[in-house]
Amino acid sequence: MTLGFLGLGIMGYPMARNLLRAGHSLAVWSNTAAKARRLAEAEKAEFCATPKQVAEAAEIVFLCVGDTAMSERVTLGPDGILDGVRAGSIVADCSTVAPSYARRAAAALAEKGAHFLDTPVTGSKPGAEGGTLTIMVGGDAAIYEKLKPYLEPMGKQVYYCGGIGLGLHAKLTQNLILSNLLQAFNEGLVLATRAGVDPELMIEILNNSAARSGMISFKAPYVLRRDFSTNFSTRWMHKDIGLMLETGAELGVPLPLTGLTRQLVQVAISEGYADEDMCSTIKVLEKIAGVEVKSISKKS
Amino acid sequence: MTLGFLGLGIMGYPMARNLLRAGHSLAVWSNTAAKARRLAEAEKAEFCATPKQVAEAAEIVFLCVGDTAMSERVTLGPDGILDGVRAGSIVADCSTVAPSYARRAAAALAEKGAHFLDTPVTGSKPGAEGGTLTIMVGGDAAIYEKLKPYLEPMGKQVYYCGGIGLGLHAKLTQNLILSNLLQAFNEGLVLATRAGVDPELMIEILNNSAARSGMISFKAPYVLRRDFSTNFSTRWMHKDIGLMLETGAELGVPLPLTGLTRQLVQVAISEGYADEDMCSTIKVLEKIAGVEVKSISKKS
Repeated sequence: MTLGFLGLGIMGYPMARNLLRAGHSLAVWSNTAAKARRLAEAEKAEFCATPKQVAEAAEIVFLCVGDTAMSERVTLGPDGILDGVRAGSIVADCSTVAPSYARRAAAALAEKGAHFLDTPVTGSKPGAEGGTLTIMVGGDAAIYEKLKPYLEPMGKQVYYCGGIGLGLHAKLTQNLILSNLLQAFNEGLVLATRAGVDPELMIEILNNSAARSGMISFKAPYVLRRDFSTNFSTRWMHKDIGLMLETGAELGVPLPLTGLTRQLVQVAISEGYADEDMCSTIKVLEKIAGVEVKSISKKS
Repeated sequence: MTLGFLGLGIMGYPMARNLLRAGHSLAVWSNTAAKARRLAEAEKAEFCATPKQVAEAAEIVFLCVGDTAMSERVTLGPDGILDGVRAGSIVADCSTVAPSYARRAAAALAEKGAHFLDTPVTGSKPGAEGGTLTIMVGGDAAIYEKLKPYLEPMGKQVYYCGGIGLGLHAKLTQNLILSNLLQAFNEGLVLATRAGVDPELMIEILNNSAARSGMISFKAPYVLRRDFSTNFSTRWMHKDIGLMLETGAELGVPLPLTGLTRQLVQVAISEGYADEDMCSTIKVLEKIAGVEVKSISKKS
């Protein structure tokens, strides 16, 4: 069986490579053709010039792109998956996009006898490279059972969340909590540092309290050594928060904290941090408070 | 050496009892005299009618009360600690109160040759009962070294944070992150549940992601079984967030998310949840969204 992979960015490239290294045949396309050529040459993937060609070649088509508009274009646009998809094929979209798009894509593909699952992933670049992503799945349970073995090379943990769009809802909820937590971390650490508490000690205290979190363990060391190179950019966080707020509006759930967090992320973008890691948002507060969250202890 | 303990509430009573059970002599006072009599009878503590009497009897005086006004009255008010304190004594305030009060108390006690340390604690009722609190200390390092052995029966981990008030700053930062995290959890879980994701599954996904946190591990099971009995009340969280915002204003650090969180906690108080656990704040959003975050899986 031939698989397909569309979108070979920070996440997609290593995910596709893991499928190839697990022994699958893979037809690949990327908006930047050079990336698809590179993967085709390095790992013997089949280069395709359009999403349609991938859909013609593959029975299971993965995609992982940047936003809802891109997913929409690749799936439903001209020379898109819909134009080439075979009856019985499965399209699994790993992008973090609007749940409403997932429902539209599923309906359109169903008319051609094909299936759609939303399969967004979490775990950042290291998870994509190591094949240790967490994957959240929405869609028909029987189709998910067919897809499951092909998720194996990419993900360590796979959660079936229910009907179409619910994988995306789970992913957005996770990012909602993360994005607010990051802003809370920023406020807390700038305040403590400004008061004179060693931020390294503060983080140690947090790590030993109910305020500990995966986000702090992962990101605090980067902040302390002032490394804002991108694992997940401020720009993408801003996009994801937009999806959360749209979803809240659709479902009638007010999200006041998340709404404010989006505006604070907007401040960071306006200050020029769009393409740095999302933890660069702390620099906005630091500038105002006149302090930097970095180790001041004698240890370092 | 005789120790003293002032304030025998949810936290103070078990903390004082742990000092007694470690073999220390203890003079006790409580605003509710009955509590001090109960401890005196049950554990052979020495009952005192005023804070002053405790200060006259003890060389190390602990206090653990509800807010800055109470700490101020017990320490500096009529028949307070200051009126009876001996030269060389150490006053250790375990309450979560304003860092500016800590500086005032330290200055007033210094005039009588006595020492003050801010020693706020974290770990809630279970930590107080089990002697496993985390204690954050601000004040003179040499005085802290003298106090240290007497913190042993109450705390598992003790962090020396620096000069006077810095223990409180560390505590407030921890609560700042916690309080925002709780609101983020509320928004995320209500949104996911409203969308149709099983909240129990959602929490499992969170616990296996960077969005995991000590707060979620601790509080989510209570929310899922709709148990809002008080470990830490909405009222006290509102008070603590007020201290964070005052501190931010003093130091010139804007805390936008924390400011909004306080208003959301105010909504919960206005809705009648002041004396329930702080996780009852989720009920405000649930009511608006028309959904309850409780297990819907077949397992339970």
